[in-house]
This record gives sequence, structure tokens and C-alpha cells, in this order.
Amino acid sequence: MEPGAAGDSRPAKPGPCVSGAALAASGEPGRRMPTVAAVLPAGGCGERMGVGTPKQFCPILERPLISYTLQALERVCWIKDIVVAVTAENMGVMERIVQKYQHTRVSLAEAGVTRHRSIFNGLKALAEDEPGCKLSKPQVVIIHDAVRPFVEEDILLQVALAAEEHGAAGAIRPLVSTVISASADGCLDHSLERATHRASEMPQAFLFDVIYEAYQQCSDYDLEFGTECLQLALKYSDTKAKLVEGSPDLWKVTYKRDLSAAESIIKERISQEICMVMDTKEDTERVGYLLEEVLKKELNNVKIVSGVRSHGGRDIQQITLPQCYNFVCVNGAASDFPETQQLLSVLEQSSLSILYPVVVVLVYFLDFKSVPLGQKMESLMWIREFAKEVKKRNILLCGLLICYPQIVL
Amino acid sequence: MEPGAAGDSRPAKPGPCVSGAALAASGEPGRRMPTVAAVLPAGGCGERMGVGTPKQFCPILERPLISYTLQALERVCWIKDIVVAVTAENMGVMERIVQKYQHTRVSLAEAGVTRHRSIFNGLKALAEDEPGCKLSKPQVVIIHDAVRPFVEEDILLQVALAAEEHGAAGAIRPLVSTVISASADGCLDHSLERATHRASEMPQAFLFDVIYEAYQQCSDYDLEFGTECLQLALKYSDTKAKLVEGSPDLWKVTYKRDLSAAESIIKERISQEICMVMDTKEDTERVGYLLEEVLKKELNNVKIVSGVRSHGGRDIQQITLPQCYNFVCVNGAASDFPETQQLLSVLEQSSLSILYPVVVVLVYFLDFKSVPLGQKMESLMWIREFAKEVKKRNILLCGLLICYPQIVL
Repeated sequence: MEPGAAGDSRPAKPGPCVSGAALAASGEPGRRMPTVAAVLPAGGCGERMGVGTPKQFCPILERPLISYTLQALERVCWIKDIVVAVTAENMGVMERIVQKYQHTRVSLAEAGVTRHRSIFNGLKALAEDEPGCKLSKPQVVIIHDAVRPFVEEDILLQVALAAEEHGAAGAIRPLVSTVISASADGCLDHSLERATHRASEMPQAFLFDVIYEAYQQCSDYDLEFGTECLQLALKYSDTKAKLVEGSPDLWKVTYKRDLSAAESIIKERISQEICMVMDTKEDTERVGYLLEEVLKKELNNVKIVSGVRSHGGRDIQQITLPQCYNFVCVNGAASDFPETQQLLSVLEQSSLSILYPVVVVLVYFLDFKSVPLGQKMESLMWIREFAKEVKKRNILLCGLLICYPQIVL
Repeated sequence: MEPGAAGDSRPAKPGPCVSGAALAASGEPGRRMPTVAAVLPAGGCGERMGVGTPKQFCPILERPLISYTLQALERVCWIKDIVVAVTAENMGVMERIVQKYQHTRVSLAEAGVTRHRSIFNGLKALAEDEPGCKLSKPQVVIIHDAVRPFVEEDILLQVALAAEEHGAAGAIRPLVSTVISASADGCLDHSLERATHRASEMPQAFLFDVIYEAYQQCSDYDLEFGTECLQLALKYSDTKAKLVEGSPDLWKVTYKRDLSAAESIIKERISQEICMVMDTKEDTERVGYLLEEVLKKELNNVKIVSGVRSHGGRDIQQITLPQCYNFVCVNGAASDFPETQQLLSVLEQSSLSILYPVVVVLVYFLDFKSVPLGQKMESLMWIREFAKEVKKRNILLCGLLICYPQIVL
């Protein structure tokens, strides 16, 4: 199944839910959604990453990887609670991440020494049979990895509904490499048929009772050395998981190089749209539209939001609605750029830049001959100072000075 | 086994071989190296990449991916011939790549419609039984993927020697995901034991006769739908392949995101060393050493080659030997920067920048009060023009102007 268009997978404000039509879109409009919670084991130390920081806390565009994953789950309004299992030593780090990026619906549990023990602890926090449990037991629980930040609502919905029906469900992907079985002397025994084998990925979902009972019954050996929750459900709850084909985006950030890959995906997502803001002076408007035409021609894959003009700031208030992260602000000769100031003020008040950097390019048409040198310098200094100021709030302001008489209009 | 240090994996000039001690290092100094050739199937269309260009031709830092892989094989002097199988429509593209990046030892064969048919065509070009065959039959043939650019000499040597001994050998990696077997109704049948299964990767190596005979005997079904050469050697030549543990660098560039990951690895490799060039004027030298100290402190992982001073260009001639891609050139008050000019001239004459961009930062200490404005402007214009000029040859020149009287020495 095709994931949503690039525009749809764009994040909303932190916390709030952008979805709603998901169940209708699943082709079963009459079906009632079960209550759903999610458990995220995040106790790993990231040894394969080859860096000191556990991979779930590694920064991508200065924000920790796990925050992207939490955001992906929080965008889905039918996931009521998200339990993150972190080690005691990283509890403080995780609390600060939840606070800084305004994550809601997140509770923390203590991770165990293995992945299975961490998931078990996460489930206990939802089980209602522990003293002091503040969360309510869901019908279905989704288990996901903290290091798979690009999970879409579509696949979450598919595994949750399949779990309600079958007791267990998990995302799968075709094998990238042939899998072989080795003999004891380190030689090829046989290679497996690719057609009948799949890679088991995340997310997986279970009827809460199915997986919780499996964990309560399973052996210490399973908790220490097992890796596959679907296998536990089969072995201890006699539940055969439904397999659901996932998209390549489900891939797991494993090695250091994957951080660069993840960054490139995020950059591409937040670069799909540019919003142009022009002041209403005639000349500027004309040049602004020419600029818009050029941008449309040069940036084939980028949507240019048609020139929003500013009338005392009203229109600017509305332009953050489409969750645009890139602005071009075309200014006439005024030296304090009221439109840009308004835009920056709106952006600062919104929580947009908490999640991703916002880029504002201030295009300044300067009548080089008639404007005195002092005023030019003042404008340039203003841009520089203002850029320093807004950078603290993750807004990147660049000034582009164009000498007016040189332009043939 | 640990791959070589970052410095060792740096590329030499295109073509020539940097290795030599490989066989001695393998722990079998008395053993004679068999004759070895390599076959690279490169006929794929890269459908998983989601871009128009087949992935082996996608650019990384403006150079096609396959050129990095060819370079990795050419660095190994005991690989005598490299046969690349490309489709008829991409033959011209491939010829231009070989010429532009000065690849030696590369012959082209026509790809078939499947991976196996392409490999078979590559083997035929080496078999000496075809009319017009210009290459000589090797004892051992390595089969590698065009889209695994980070293969090290170490693993190539291991599979080649194991192939000589066992008839066949292949690189393997631990499984990243659990592999499951699906039942006919799309449910989990069972999950495979991770401990006894491995992902089969590339490179693989074979006694030439073993794999060539296997291909001559195998069925059309194998040629159409099979993927695993090791399996063909087992089935048709009764040869059990030796399995060799590879490093994570063997990974295959598969999705668009992997191009970003590959770029980050290459950037890291060519950023490991900075060479400082200073003129011999006393003040400059002093400031240069201070700058060196600061760089050493700030860039923990980067090796700073101790200030090479220029005496009429002699020393500069030698500094391209360690294959450094980053230069900081500290200049005194001279307006035409003779040291930088010398360095740029040496770099242009070398073939260093054919493979990777070379960065030169020109640090220019300017006595702002005593130097007339005209001269300052001239120096700046010179840098700008020169930067334009050398950029054509993949050298990126940046100027850093520091006003002299403001520095406390």
C-alpha cells in the first residue's frame, strides 16, 4: 500500500493529532476502533552504531532520533498512551526530551537488560494489575522500535486491526540479501528460498492479553536470548500472527551511516514546500512574481505556495497552517522589513520550529544609488543581529541583497 | 577482522595499486597468489531506488557510484582484470566513466536480462574459449556488486584464498532482522533461529572452472530466477562454499537514502587529514602554528599534518603524497599568494581531484591600515577569479581574510 503523499506525512504541531479519517480509509467504515497503546523499548546501547551515544538519542538536525519516532506515533490520534522503556541512567535524558519537544501521551518505564525484558516492563505499566499503575489497559498494544522514525499511520492501523482480528500481527519486508544456513564447519549448507521467507520488521501489534500472558509464561532463556515477539505469541499463546507488507520506510536506524540517510529523508520532507511573502508595493510585487516563476521552474518537485501578501499581518497569521518550513520574504526599500518582522514573530509564537529548523530567506531590493551608505549598512547589520536572535529558536534567517538598478524588469 | 585504518583505505591515484603486503598480512607469507580477475554485474535498472538513473550510475559527490567500486577493486594490485557487464544502452555511459575517471584494467561485456545472465556474460569474456577474447583466464574469479563501493582489500583477499582452497567462498553478515517463514494464508509459520542463519553478501569468489561449469550446466530457470552464485556452485559443481564474515561496510546501496549514507562515509574518509602550508615569513609562521594548535584542539579526529613550509615549491611537491584532500594555506601580505599558487598548480597537475573534490582554504593576513584599498580589492578579486578557475578541476578554493592589526600575537 502506498503511504500518504509527502504533504500528508508532514508533522503537525507537536502533540496534536492530524489523522482522523484513518479507519474510514481502511475500507471498514463501520468498524469500531479498539483501544490502543504503544510500547517502545529504548534501552539499547547502540553498540553497532560505533558512537558513544545510544542510537535512539543520537541527534538528527539537532533533535534526538527517538523524538521523531514519538512524533510519528503522536500524530495518530487513536494511540492513547505511549510507554517508553529507558534505562535508569537515561531516565533524565528522556524526561528532558519529552519536555523540550512537548511530547504528550508519553509515560516512561524502566528498561530491562534485554529487549524482551524492556517490552515486558512496558506492558506491566499498562496492565492495571500493578500497584500505582496510572494507565488503563488497552485492548490492543503496538510494539515499535525507537529507531524506526518513519512509521506511517497506515501500517500502524493495519497491524492494529489485524491484531484485533488474529490476536497478533507484524510488519514484514522482502529479503534484501539471500539467507543461508551454515554448517558447523563454516561452509554453506543451503540457501533459503527467497519467495517463502520474509524479514520480520516493526511495528507489531497484539491483543494485550495475548502478548502479556505470553511474557508472563515465557522462560528466562526467552527473555535473555529471544528477539521475536511474534514467536512468543505463537509459542505461549498459540496465536499465529498475521503478516502485513510494510514500506521500505520501516527500516531501522542501525549504523552510523543510517543517521545520514535519516537526515536526508527528513530534509527532503521539510523541503517540499516554499511559501512566498511579499509586501504590497507595486514594484516588489512584480519582482516577487517573477521570482516565484523562476523558483517554480527550477525546483520541479517543490510546491510554491502562491504569493501570500501581507496586509497588516492578517494573511501571515494563516500561512503557518500548511506546516510550511521554508519562507521567501520579498521586501522593498524599507530598512526594518516590517513583513519579515511580522513573519518571524508569528513563527516564534507557533511551535513549528520546535521540531524542525525553519528557513526564512529575506530578499531585499535595494536602490543602490539613492539609498545612503549608512542606511545600507544599518539594514545589513539589522539582518545579521536578527538572524543571531532567531537562530536561538531554531529559525534560520538569511539575507539576500539585490541591487535594484541592475535588474531589468 | 578489522578493516585497515582510515588512512590506509584512502584512495591512491586512479588506477595504481596501493597494496602489496596483503598476502604477507594474511598470515601465509609463503603462499603464492593465484591469478585473479573480477566480474561486476551492472545491468540493473535500480527500480528500488525510485529515481530514473540506474543506481550504479547515480552520482555521489558528482562521481557515479560504480566508479567508487571500480576504484576499490583497482587499488588491489593482484586483481588483473575487471569485467563490467552493462546493458547495450548504457555501454556509452560506462565507456565515458572509465575514460573520465581513468580506470585501468576494466573491460566491458554486455549485460543479460537477469543478474545471472550478466555474470555469465562476464565470465565468458574471461573464458578464452570465445573467439576474439582478449583477456586471459584467471584461476580465481571474484564476483562483486557494482553498488557495494566500500569493499576492502582484506575481505577480497580472504574470499579469493578461500576460493582457491575450497572452490567457492562468499562474504556473510549477521542477520539484522529476524527471518520468518510465511504460511500460504499470509500468517507466521515459524521464525528462523538467528544463530544458524546468515545474510549472504558480496564479494564471492570461485575457482574459475567451478563457477563457469556451473553456469554452463544450469537451467534457464536458474538463470532467470536464481540469485545466489554459491547455490549454483553447490548444485552443479558439488562445491560447498566457505563462508567468510564481512564488515558492515559491505552493505549494498539499495534505496535513495543509501546514496546519502554513502556520501557521508566518503566525506568522513576524505576529511580525516588536513595539511597546512605556510610561507616562511616569521609572523605568518607564528600565526600559522597558533592556528594549527587551535585546529588540533577543535578537530579531535582529524590528523593535522605538521606545517609544511614552502621553500621555492620543493616541499609542496611532496605533500600530495599522503593523499590529503584538505589544505590550509597561510599567507602573509603578498597580494598574489605565491605559495597558494604553487600548491594549486601541484594539485592541478596531480590526478588527485579527478576522484574527490580537494578543498583549499587560503588564509590571508592583511595589514588593514597600511595596505591601500586598491590592493585589498585586487587580492579579493584574484581569489574570486582563481576560485572560479580551479573549480572546473574539482578544486574548491575558499578565501579567509583576517585583518592583521586586530590579532593579538
